[in-house]
Amino acid sequence: MFNLGKAIPFEDKPNDLLTVGELLVDMISNEYGDAFECDGYTRYFGGSPSNIAINVNKLGIRSYVASAVGRDGLGTFLEKGLQNAGMDTSGIQRVEESTSMVVITKSQETPIPIFYRGADSELAYNDSLEQALIRSKIVHFSCWPISRVPSRYTVERVIEKAREHKLLIGFDPNYHPLIWQKGEDGVSYVKSIIPKVDIIKPSEDDAERLFGPGTPAEQVERFLELGAKLVVMTLGKEGAMVSNGMEILTFDTKATEIEDTTGAGDAFWSGFYAAVVKGYTIKEALELGFAVSAYKLKFTGAVVNLPTLEVLKKQFDL
Amino acid sequence: MFNLGKAIPFEDKPNDLLTVGELLVDMISNEYGDAFECDGYTRYFGGSPSNIAINVNKLGIRSYVASAVGRDGLGTFLEKGLQNAGMDTSGIQRVEESTSMVVITKSQETPIPIFYRGADSELAYNDSLEQALIRSKIVHFSCWPISRVPSRYTVERVIEKAREHKLLIGFDPNYHPLIWQKGEDGVSYVKSIIPKVDIIKPSEDDAERLFGPGTPAEQVERFLELGAKLVVMTLGKEGAMVSNGMEILTFDTKATEIEDTTGAGDAFWSGFYAAVVKGYTIKEALELGFAVSAYKLKFTGAVVNLPTLEVLKKQFDL
Repeated sequence: MFNLGKAIPFEDKPNDLLTVGELLVDMISNEYGDAFECDGYTRYFGGSPSNIAINVNKLGIRSYVASAVGRDGLGTFLEKGLQNAGMDTSGIQRVEESTSMVVITKSQETPIPIFYRGADSELAYNDSLEQALIRSKIVHFSCWPISRVPSRYTVERVIEKAREHKLLIGFDPNYHPLIWQKGEDGVSYVKSIIPKVDIIKPSEDDAERLFGPGTPAEQVERFLELGAKLVVMTLGKEGAMVSNGMEILTFDTKATEIEDTTGAGDAFWSGFYAAVVKGYTIKEALELGFAVSAYKLKFTGAVVNLPTLEVLKKQFDL
Repeated sequence: MFNLGKAIPFEDKPNDLLTVGELLVDMISNEYGDAFECDGYTRYFGGSPSNIAINVNKLGIRSYVASAVGRDGLGTFLEKGLQNAGMDTSGIQRVEESTSMVVITKSQETPIPIFYRGADSELAYNDSLEQALIRSKIVHFSCWPISRVPSRYTVERVIEKAREHKLLIGFDPNYHPLIWQKGEDGVSYVKSIIPKVDIIKPSEDDAERLFGPGTPAEQVERFLELGAKLVVMTLGKEGAMVSNGMEILTFDTKATEIEDTTGAGDAFWSGFYAAVVKGYTIKEALELGFAVSAYKLKFTGAVVNLPTLEVLKKQFDL
């Protein structure tokens, strides 16, 4: 059980955070408009594992990414994007399938993404990935790699090996039926993964997709009943509710200015991971995670130019 | 055997040409540049069956398209694109998979396309498609729908039913390993289809991908040995070589000005189909096909504003 008032003990390892999973192109329309009105698109570097890895680096801890992209121009674009952010790209596998892409046409209503799953779900478990895992303190993944095979098998082995080597395991249960393997009950599978990890950060939407409607307290309870050890449920402008199964903490949002919500959840993970590695208590790390998220919200884009954790700590009076 | 000096007899049917297969988005970079330099893209209406159907309509015959797109914004974009071109879209199936897309980053060398196969390969054989087939004089398809299942099964049934109802069958053997189902020998399958159709129009590249290198005459001979009935082999600026297995005709190119080669092959098919339906001899129809292609080459884009076949006939002194 996690003691919220204490730091998480880590063995000394050469790397802090390993993120595993989707690296993809976000192809986003330049203007708002319905299907026929906007023909101009811009490609962006995308995928939350890489965004988190780049963020935590800026915040002051070491990170490494394991992802698969195609042997094509968009794969090269993504690999160079990581290199330009100062990341080691030796964990990027180049595979036969086309580099995965999400096409988003902006709209005044909710934009509906179109998913093109290719290379990302081909991520293989290999020696290089196993070594990266053994050398890390924390491993993180989302629903993307577990929603398809063979990357699902890779994550299953990652979880097993991470347990064996006492890594902290963070899982983003961002379940969405559209990314899931056709004809399979993704909800059951996601629920089966939750007891195998240490920390989950569902949003209200994630919880509703997995359990149906409920109050935040009810949803947190449902995750705990499944065997979750630490649930960080984000509630948008209502802040967050956190529970380790014994106590419940609520957090007000620290956001003062909302320019763009893209990547706000990844920014939370980034601040939280950086803080636990730096020896802050879980409660402090949660505060710092929400601070990084609030900082990100002031800027456009999934990855913004974050200062170090210490600077943010002062800025947010923590 | 096709008598090149005679017209092809058709039964009276309510529709002239049915095209079956890929309807997709071409996402093309706005500038030339390598992987990292160009982030701006523009989406275009794409897929040769629809381009041909729209073309022949402009040339003065009736056409109908059977394709599958996703239940997403890009699918709506494509369906509206057909409607805006005055086409009946009742043959467009909306399916679960994402609308197929080809991403092309322009480059000074050959641009390498990245293929995202989704909805297009889900094209189903249904009552509506069978009715469209029975009501048509000609059916046309390319390698796209036969390169994946289930659309391959659909084309196999289309061929069978087309034979039964005495349609003329045109096949574009535009074989490319990247569109093919992984782990399958596409070359053998394409070769197995050739004797089942009436007319094929390989390019030199297509022939080389299927047979390896050879002179045009050798390649035409190889297609005939497989059982092809009428081979129209295009040779770029060298014109074309045509054979029905008894005689060989060569054609000089009619192109005087080359602005953009995109869609030039589809323009040939369009002129040829329009002409055979209008009762021209095969030789005349070939000339008219090459005239339409030469006209298209003067303009940018896969589908250009074609005049009627009669106007083109005069323009090219045919």
